[in-house]
Amino acid sequence: MIAIAITIMVLELRVPHGADWAALRPVVPVLLTYALGFVFLGTYWNNHHHMLHATDRINGKILWANLHLLFWLSLVPFVTRWVGESHFAPLPTAVYGGVLLLAAVAYLMLTIAILALHGPSSRLAKAVGRETKGKLSAALYVVAIPLAFVSPWIAIGIYVFVALFWLIPDRRIESTIR
Amino acid sequence: MIAIAITIMVLELRVPHGADWAALRPVVPVLLTYALGFVFLGTYWNNHHHMLHATDRINGKILWANLHLLFWLSLVPFVTRWVGESHFAPLPTAVYGGVLLLAAVAYLMLTIAILALHGPSSRLAKAVGRETKGKLSAALYVVAIPLAFVSPWIAIGIYVFVALFWLIPDRRIESTIR
Amino acid sequence: MIAIAITIMVLELRVPHGADWAALRPVVPVLLTYALGFVFLGTYWNNHHHMLHATDRINGKILWANLHLLFWLSLVPFVTRWVGESHFAPLPTAVYGGVLLLAAVAYLMLTIAILALHGPSSRLAKAVGRETKGKLSAALYVVAIPLAFVSPWIAIGIYVFVALFWLIPDRRIESTIR
Amino acid sequence: MIAIAITIMVLELRVPHGADWAALRPVVPVLLTYALGFVFLGTYWNNHHHMLHATDRINGKILWANLHLLFWLSLVPFVTRWVGESHFAPLPTAVYGGVLLLAAVAYLMLTIAILALHGPSSRLAKAVGRETKGKLSAALYVVAIPLAFVSPWIAIGIYVFVALFWLIPDRRIESTIR
Repeated sequence: MIAIAITIMVLELRVPHGADWAALRPVVPVLLTYALGFVFLGTYWNNHHHMLHATDRINGKILWANLHLLFWLSLVPFVTRWVGESHFAPLPTAVYGGVLLLAAVAYLMLTIAILALHGPSSRLAKAVGRETKGKLSAALYVVAIPLAFVSPWIAIGIYVFVALFWLIPDRRIESTIR
Repeated sequence: MIAIAITIMVLELRVPHGADWAALRPVVPVLLTYALGFVFLGTYWNNHHHMLHATDRINGKILWANLHLLFWLSLVPFVTRWVGESHFAPLPTAVYGGVLLLAAVAYLMLTIAILALHGPSSRLAKAVGRETKGKLSAALYVVAIPLAFVSPWIAIGIYVFVALFWLIPDRRIESTIR
Repeated sequence: MIAIAITIMVLELRVPHGADWAALRPVVPVLLTYALGFVFLGTYWNNHHHMLHATDRINGKILWANLHLLFWLSLVPFVTRWVGESHFAPLPTAVYGGVLLLAAVAYLMLTIAILALHGPSSRLAKAVGRETKGKLSAALYVVAIPLAFVSPWIAIGIYVFVALFWLIPDRRIESTIR
Repeated sequence: MIAIAITIMVLELRVPHGADWAALRPVVPVLLTYALGFVFLGTYWNNHHHMLHATDRINGKILWANLHLLFWLSLVPFVTRWVGESHFAPLPTAVYGGVLLLAAVAYLMLTIAILALHGPSSRLAKAVGRETKGKLSAALYVVAIPLAFVSPWIAIGIYVFVALFWLIPDRRIESTIR
């Protein structure tokens, strides 16, 4: 489903009205927004894959926590489009941050639901750790959202920072899984 | 495929024409409709997952019963859009209930087809039980559909009640599967 | 991918412009076209599932034969839309039959590629048999296509007949797989 | 996800405005572009399947290399549409080649990441070989891109050549996997 959300974003890309460099220029910011959304959804995909791969049991609570996460992730193409069409206006940028924040909170809730079933001494619990990275991301979004009304670019800068922060492979999880 | 139907609903969401709070207001009911559709399809997804997970054999009848269910679920984005665009008019609300009813009936038929293959003493039969919940939902939809012509909000209220009713985790199934 | 093609067809459904019975009437033929396309793609899905389930080896030829089948199936939403928008005009109806014919031929080619790898004495070969049903369907399409220029309804009637013909569960395959 | 990208391309196909042969004619080049895009994405799908099938371990680097490949492949429907709408103008044709080149480079990077984890003496390393085919394709794209500004048809010719070149089943990989 994360894959579908990513591909829906590309469906939203408008083909340039013309075939010269001038026609390509207005598409550049949209492509950058797409790339940013791709990195966000891709990060969730990778981490989700890592976590579910180490999960060997499932219950109703986990299924619902997972659906809750997918709900917020499914709104990412919608807010990405809004930010793009409004040329990074304050409110859309803040709403974008809000959706990212709620997705981060949903991910933490999913982690908690999985850890509750597997117990604190499980292989997964060691791999996931105390989810400092997730909590820090959520805190950064909380800071970024009001700043979007001061300057959307500060907020976008913080979102990009969080994205890059997640791009760094989480060596601790990998080594535990290996 | 349920995942695709969910994501298609988000594709139908219109981006607000503007970047202020006033532009966001008309989108709110559409987002609520989306959230309701998400809960409906998500409930089917979770229950479907639970049931198919406990299924170890399959035959042509099950495959067709499954496709029949997917047919009605695939119409959910279409009727959700119609309800949203008509601002909860009576006929679209009744048709929405009709699609939900037919999906509920198709789910019961799928359950019966799976139980017929696995036998009444199987682990699955114990987990699924007598499908009281499914039959009660279908009965509530039958009541709600004519009421949509009295007041669409009564019908919507019943649909939301059924959705919340399913959100409560089915502890019986879980404990049997565990 | 067949699931995606099905859901794309529902995306093409136009929401009625109004909320009364009169507005619903023009949508009825489109919904019937959708249901027909759903049955066609669903039949391929079920048979494809049955066949690949009994396949334990794969090679490059099978992968390409599979892609070739998916190519023609991916065009089904496109021709379904064209038939619907042209209100069952002769040429679109003939082209629709052409795509169904090429999909049927591609399915036969996939069957041959799988049987060539598994050998004539395999469990699969017994299950699939001599593919009489597939060859008969192809022959019926060949007859239907020119008849679309006489009367599109004769051609549509033959397509519906082939679809119903496939809906009857293939007991032979099932019993062999069981 | 490659499947989704393929199906999105068919969603972009415009239904002919009419029901006669004249209406079908302008659709022919678009269908050819679709077929070309289908072959490109299908080739990646098959090779991707082959490679991941022989992969028994995974790490963060492989997940990101995989996402990087999917990023460029997800842009294929977008550039395909642009090439089609601009009737094979030089710039869109060059950009199309650029996306194909970056996808080819991403595939090489994914191969390197997988081989780095599995070691040079693994079954996979023998199957994948020295990736001469991938490097040659990348080199051909580098040659084709500037030639698009001389004549887009020369560039398209080279892209088609690379596509056909990949259609030939890779007997070496198959025999090793078998």
